[in-house]
Amino acid sequence: MALTEKLAVAWEKSTSLACVGLDPDPERMPIDDVAAFNRAIVDATRDLVCAYKLQLAFYEALGVPGLVALEATVRHIRDAAPHAVVIGDGKRGDIGSTARAYAKAMFQVWDFDAVTVNPYQGRDAVDPFLAYEDRGVFLVCRTSNPSSADLQDLRLDGRALYERVADAAEEWGAAGQVGLVVGAGVLDGLRGLRAAHPALPFLVPGVGAQGGDAAAVVRAGADAAGRGLVVSSSRHVIYASSRAADFAAAARERARELRDALDSARAG
Amino acid sequence: MALTEKLAVAWEKSTSLACVGLDPDPERMPIDDVAAFNRAIVDATRDLVCAYKLQLAFYEALGVPGLVALEATVRHIRDAAPHAVVIGDGKRGDIGSTARAYAKAMFQVWDFDAVTVNPYQGRDAVDPFLAYEDRGVFLVCRTSNPSSADLQDLRLDGRALYERVADAAEEWGAAGQVGLVVGAGVLDGLRGLRAAHPALPFLVPGVGAQGGDAAAVVRAGADAAGRGLVVSSSRHVIYASSRAADFAAAARERARELRDALDSARAG
Repeated sequence: MALTEKLAVAWEKSTSLACVGLDPDPERMPIDDVAAFNRAIVDATRDLVCAYKLQLAFYEALGVPGLVALEATVRHIRDAAPHAVVIGDGKRGDIGSTARAYAKAMFQVWDFDAVTVNPYQGRDAVDPFLAYEDRGVFLVCRTSNPSSADLQDLRLDGRALYERVADAAEEWGAAGQVGLVVGAGVLDGLRGLRAAHPALPFLVPGVGAQGGDAAAVVRAGADAAGRGLVVSSSRHVIYASSRAADFAAAARERARELRDALDSARAG
Repeated sequence: MALTEKLAVAWEKSTSLACVGLDPDPERMPIDDVAAFNRAIVDATRDLVCAYKLQLAFYEALGVPGLVALEATVRHIRDAAPHAVVIGDGKRGDIGSTARAYAKAMFQVWDFDAVTVNPYQGRDAVDPFLAYEDRGVFLVCRTSNPSSADLQDLRLDGRALYERVADAAEEWGAAGQVGLVVGAGVLDGLRGLRAAHPALPFLVPGVGAQGGDAAAVVRAGADAAGRGLVVSSSRHVIYASSRAADFAAAARERARELRDALDSARAG
């Protein structure tokens, strides 16, 4: 099943555009065990989300034990939330045998359904991921950080670099394996990209703690069916409470608010 | 000690511009144990190189045991070749707390002296690495793969995107912490970048198996002192022989050839 089909099933079964980002930070987690923390969050939110997103950096920063926890977390999501698309957010980008090794790591070793990939090295960096027909890629396109404009907004013959990346995603992703990463903070970008690419799925991080407004994201970026979006919130959900006694319940409450805000905007 | 100083010491002590890339591939290694394979290569080449480069993808593709071997390899290089700069080639690129987590992983967990970073998200993706004053960054600038031109060669106001990246590296790396990754296959690019940036160190992968010619790289890319380059060869060196009995000796021979070819071109 290609990425777009997997997402269609996930949106159908969950009736949610929300994604929870599992980014373990020892300074903010109310319990020490990363795998147990993630398990509790997944169990508390599994009926509210279409996807989970694991930011590789936070696991790597914990060294080998972090990656053991990553493996355990993906396995748990498979059991507890079989409808959910599991996204490995690593923004890998390399070529040739190295890119093949990254694709093997992300799909065969860590078992992600979809991964984020950096487009700077062109199609060679993406093709090895597309060789896995039942997996998918979100190409990093337009991010919300202040310096994203350093490169992404540079204009070539009247079109921004990030628009070229989106065109490339459309071309490379004919089989429904490619989507875009578009930051929640760039609503104009989101609106323009949706107009130009009615069928591409967008992964939109940065709702919640990073200040993106969920309803505005849906109004700017949803497709004609009111879907097409995976709207991800990480810290705002998983660190809703710093107490071991209620962090999972607090995360559920925030995830429910996110799901409902996204849902209202679709209806409205 | 900033990256440029560490490199100056490594060039001085080794009198070599050569770097060996440690990219473990189970299909090509003559012995099964990755850490033992790397140890043998390091012991056989340590007097011939200024640096070792570990391509993260190949370790991740082996899962958790691969990352355990990566840790052991870096520790062994510290003991066996204390002069060598240890480069983590991960081409990470992200922002905010995620970029800080990557910097922590690459510098504090895996203990690399320098890492490769993807510039697509602008300065925000680089700054967290620069917060480590005694470490360094090679910014991915111009690669040799066929599709690198998809983005890197796009021209804005007469200048290629990769030239903009090099300008940015110069600006961001005032403290001697930043260099560029430039593929061995793009000699014109290398020549132009050296002319524009006389003092930046260049990491040049792709010599040997990928077809780059070592002497031509030195003629195009060396600085005024005949240095400024870390010229890396991976498969061509480490898989010189497929026999357990002599793979280390064969790797030494190839590394010596690389060092000598680079050295002759400096003198010539």
